[in-house]
Amino acid sequence: MSDTVAMLKALADPVRWKALTFLREPGPSTCSQGDQGVCACDLEHVLGVSQPTVSHHMKQLVDVGLVRALRRSRWVFYEIDQEGFSALEAEIGRFSTAPTTAARDDTALA
Amino acid sequence: MSDTVAMLKALADPVRWKALTFLREPGPSTCSQGDQGVCACDLEHVLGVSQPTVSHHMKQLVDVGLVRALRRSRWVFYEIDQEGFSALEAEIGRFSTAPTTAARDDTALA
Repeated sequence: MSDTVAMLKALADPVRWKALTFLREPGPSTCSQGDQGVCACDLEHVLGVSQPTVSHHMKQLVDVGLVRALRRSRWVFYEIDQEGFSALEAEIGRFSTAPTTAARDDTALA
Repeated sequence: MSDTVAMLKALADPVRWKALTFLREPGPSTCSQGDQGVCACDLEHVLGVSQPTVSHHMKQLVDVGLVRALRRSRWVFYEIDQEGFSALEAEIGRFSTAPTTAARDDTALA
């Protein structure tokens, strides 16, 4: 449970959510594409923040297993950790099919 | 996107996560069961917090559409909003099957 809350805390930030959306579908102008991950330099431009701020935000996501960081020479490249998101998706999914509310009568709504 | 971040912020709290887990599977000692939702009075005991604190936390979840509140006489009952969780599950699920990383070669990991 605490792992899930840690993941949620890492995700619950507009800058980090924007970074993830970009990691998922990088634009054509990025300096790296395909199986290379996304360069930290591209995230600086997309997010409009400094390199240390990029590092700070991405570290939150790496630490909880939602992003992988890959160092190549002087740059760090980032990619989404699909396994981490799958685990979180399963946790959230437990509440979209909650057993105690499956047969609830919505006519009782106030 | 901002709706999703708002949902994540509401979820990213240990007390609220514990409340949701209890709403999903209330114990046998609660004062209401089945299709009645969970009484705020039970949440006070489970979470070990005051009634105003219960109200504060649950309002965060109600406001983003993850919980429904139902007033009956002097008590408020809460139930999980499965539709809200389904929507969030779908947003999270986009990252567990990210198109740009689907064919990634993990041997490139540093």
